[in-house]
Amino acid sequence: MKTLKIQSKQREEMIEITAQVEQVLRAERELKDGVCVLFTQHTTCGLTINENADPDVKSDLLLFLRKTIPQFYEGFRHFEHNSDAHIKASLVGASLTVPFADGTLLLGRWQGIYLCEFDGARERKVLLKII
Amino acid sequence: MKTLKIQSKQREEMIEITAQVEQVLRAERELKDGVCVLFTQHTTCGLTINENADPDVKSDLLLFLRKTIPQFYEGFRHFEHNSDAHIKASLVGASLTVPFADGTLLLGRWQGIYLCEFDGARERKVLLKII
Amino acid sequence: MKTLKIQSKQREEMIEITAQVEQVLRAERELKDGVCVLFTQHTTCGLTINENADPDVKSDLLLFLRKTIPQFYEGFRHFEHNSDAHIKASLVGASLTVPFADGTLLLGRWQGIYLCEFDGARERKVLLKII
Repeated sequence: MKTLKIQSKQREEMIEITAQVEQVLRAERELKDGVCVLFTQHTTCGLTINENADPDVKSDLLLFLRKTIPQFYEGFRHFEHNSDAHIKASLVGASLTVPFADGTLLLGRWQGIYLCEFDGARERKVLLKII
Repeated sequence: MKTLKIQSKQREEMIEITAQVEQVLRAERELKDGVCVLFTQHTTCGLTINENADPDVKSDLLLFLRKTIPQFYEGFRHFEHNSDAHIKASLVGASLTVPFADGTLLLGRWQGIYLCEFDGARERKVLLKII
Repeated sequence: MKTLKIQSKQREEMIEITAQVEQVLRAERELKDGVCVLFTQHTTCGLTINENADPDVKSDLLLFLRKTIPQFYEGFRHFEHNSDAHIKASLVGASLTVPFADGTLLLGRWQGIYLCEFDGARERKVLLKII
């Protein structure tokens, strides 16, 4: 079990962590193929896979979520005023399972692994377990 | 493979099942560390991880989903009139992968595991497989 | 590791792949029970589990997503004009973990496994890893 630490700098941000995951995989040389399980230990960020070519994909995704799930929404009662971030976290999800072979993640050509920060800036922890 | 049975009492409800999952893990004493896979065998409920401190997080999440994905939406054709629940189920997801070590789930400080009921009240089954 | 190839025929489509997954499982006769990890190598489609009885569930889900996440949304900047598909992909998710026993997927009575195409028609690849 490894822990990745990721520092976000804004309230909402998509931070690519593919290189950090691959670095852990490379260090485990005896592993031929399997699945990499990623798990964030927080309730206001998520993990997702999306395009890592045009950065507009990231900003369009964050724009859409911010407009659709506003921080101040009629009826929200949670005293921390970050229910929007909790909702986004549940929709995006807290875990990912990514297959690998020969020590390399089997990502598609345009895929990157992202931590989706919805209530930063904060330090976030992502657990990485290889099975 | 274990099966957890969860009884919901309302149409929409977030039911914490962390204690039930941990109970299964404790019974498997020989297991040092791995991943707990949870899987719901239904199409109108989901599994998610979110805050288990302030209950307003749960009600805010359900409120938002109910307002955004209404039960009676123009154009819905499914004769059971629960397409909203099917959509919420696909967005939240049917499975979770949670790492554990020394027989303890590696949840963050504020994380709980929830069954999200979107079309209750019913008895729901969640499969639990340790790998 | 197996690769399923799926040909979509429309821009938005839910294609059931349960039979293809079960076929792979049956070919691996020595496997008693475990988890089947499915992973799509794309950023504009997703994998989900939902009802496979009434086809109106599929069309209602696609209708709702299309109305809620329109292809042309004010503020989208991605030059390929498919940010909607990227967003839907992240909300539905790129991976699934489905338990099996005695070579049979432990799906509930109404559950089917679907590739959700959000930017077709295309050929899509889904990796299948048994653990």
